[in-house]
Amino acid sequence: MCVDKVTRRSLIFGAAATAAAVATPAPAQAAPGRSGLQDLTHVVTPSFPAFEPGEEPSRRTATTVEKDGYYMQEWTILEHFGTHVDAPAHFTAGGRTSEELSLSELITPAVVIDIARRAAREPDTTVTVADLVAYERKHDRIPRNAAVLMFSGWAAKAGDAAAYRGTDSAGKLHFPGFSVDACEWLLTKRGIRSLGVDTLSIDPGISAGFETHLALTGADRYGVENLAGLDRIPRHGATLTVGLIPYLDGSGGQARVFARW
Amino acid sequence: MCVDKVTRRSLIFGAAATAAAVATPAPAQAAPGRSGLQDLTHVVTPSFPAFEPGEEPSRRTATTVEKDGYYMQEWTILEHFGTHVDAPAHFTAGGRTSEELSLSELITPAVVIDIARRAAREPDTTVTVADLVAYERKHDRIPRNAAVLMFSGWAAKAGDAAAYRGTDSAGKLHFPGFSVDACEWLLTKRGIRSLGVDTLSIDPGISAGFETHLALTGADRYGVENLAGLDRIPRHGATLTVGLIPYLDGSGGQARVFARW
Ligand SMILES: [Zn+2]
Ligand SMILES: [Zn+2]
Repeated sequence: MCVDKVTRRSLIFGAAATAAAVATPAPAQAAPGRSGLQDLTHVVTPSFPAFEPGEEPSRRTATTVEKDGYYMQEWTILEHFGTHVDAPAHFTAGGRTSEELSLSELITPAVVIDIARRAAREPDTTVTVADLVAYERKHDRIPRNAAVLMFSGWAAKAGDAAAYRGTDSAGKLHFPGFSVDACEWLLTKRGIRSLGVDTLSIDPGISAGFETHLALTGADRYGVENLAGLDRIPRHGATLTVGLIPYLDGSGGQARVFARW
Repeated sequence: MCVDKVTRRSLIFGAAATAAAVATPAPAQAAPGRSGLQDLTHVVTPSFPAFEPGEEPSRRTATTVEKDGYYMQEWTILEHFGTHVDAPAHFTAGGRTSEELSLSELITPAVVIDIARRAAREPDTTVTVADLVAYERKHDRIPRNAAVLMFSGWAAKAGDAAAYRGTDSAGKLHFPGFSVDACEWLLTKRGIRSLGVDTLSIDPGISAGFETHLALTGADRYGVENLAGLDRIPRHGATLTVGLIPYLDGSGGQARVFARW
């Protein structure tokens, strides 16, 4: 029955299931007087691609209505599976952990950098400083404390783990991410709060050294990975909410993420 | 170090740690022009009281910055531990599961019913229809699709599992909840969306049959349990956000819950 549910949604949305997804048109920007609410969270399911094959969560049915009067599942899950946060402590020793990120840091202006057309041709591409300058020319200055979100079109591949990872014959990964230069520019020139991506990692798949992770978490800022639905929110003017589970000593964790405008 | 962190917070707040808690005065109602943001989520830690002793989550350190270049924990956790949602499927066979609850159902007006003074004397007390009528006389009519939240003062006991459960010498539990009459009244007369409590269960601890759970989930409505900080939000006029993790086939699940006004 759970397989049927996912398959039905996959047919409709051509992607892994998004929680209670609703097909809405993609607004270019938040228009005055027009409000919207968009879920950006993938369903937590063992069939969603983990960063490393084999790292998927497992679940067991702990109780059932029939036998016990109530139904519960138990999950064994890494903090970095599915739509999730990378806390500063994920890559930076002594960095802040999940329960130390305050709500006011988790609710921020959202900016969407659309590189989907280029990424379809060049899966190793990155968001560059030139992309950010072009974004500001076309839209508006990136506000302080913003979440800067890469829309690469990758969420549509999440139903196929090999395609989502972009694994080649040598086992290397190919998906887009943020260049370390763009990350540093956003940190120093725009005072951003977070980076978000619709891929497995804020660094591109080909990265060996996780430079963008190191720059971001070293600056006490956090990342959000495996976002969905970024084609359905305004390029600027939305507010992002990152409903992070406050795991004790968490390196990050599952989050319910959505945009409002 | 993790123990130190929790202990320090427990000293400050006299309770189990709330995620990035900030002590703010308790407003009676949302005043025009005065906005607020309050976290209502307990930190996810194995030392938080589970409904049944022994049901606490376990965690392991999967990788460390020192050895692996990045730090991750893995959790084994029931969907009903900590601040969490009870989906309709938790008590109602065929009811909707976590990933089927839409964002628009998870963001609702919030109403706080304060029974803390009575609960301090009578831990088996419940929210009654008389409490709801008195609330409406004092404040305002409970709006449609509201989250009706019981503030009993129990969150302050969460650092002591025996006190939070109220276990007596016969092993019976004693903590307040919603009476089934109040639940039915709210469902039929006010068309509410959810019930929330600062205890382990929306039914009182002495309940044998979980009548309130059955009435609520049977009406395709959800519950939120183990809330914190309900003394710090307006009695009416706030908006509740329940950032539920959309577990596949979930009977409920961990949620980041907060109020804005
Ligand atoms: Zn991560
Ligand atoms: Zn529950």
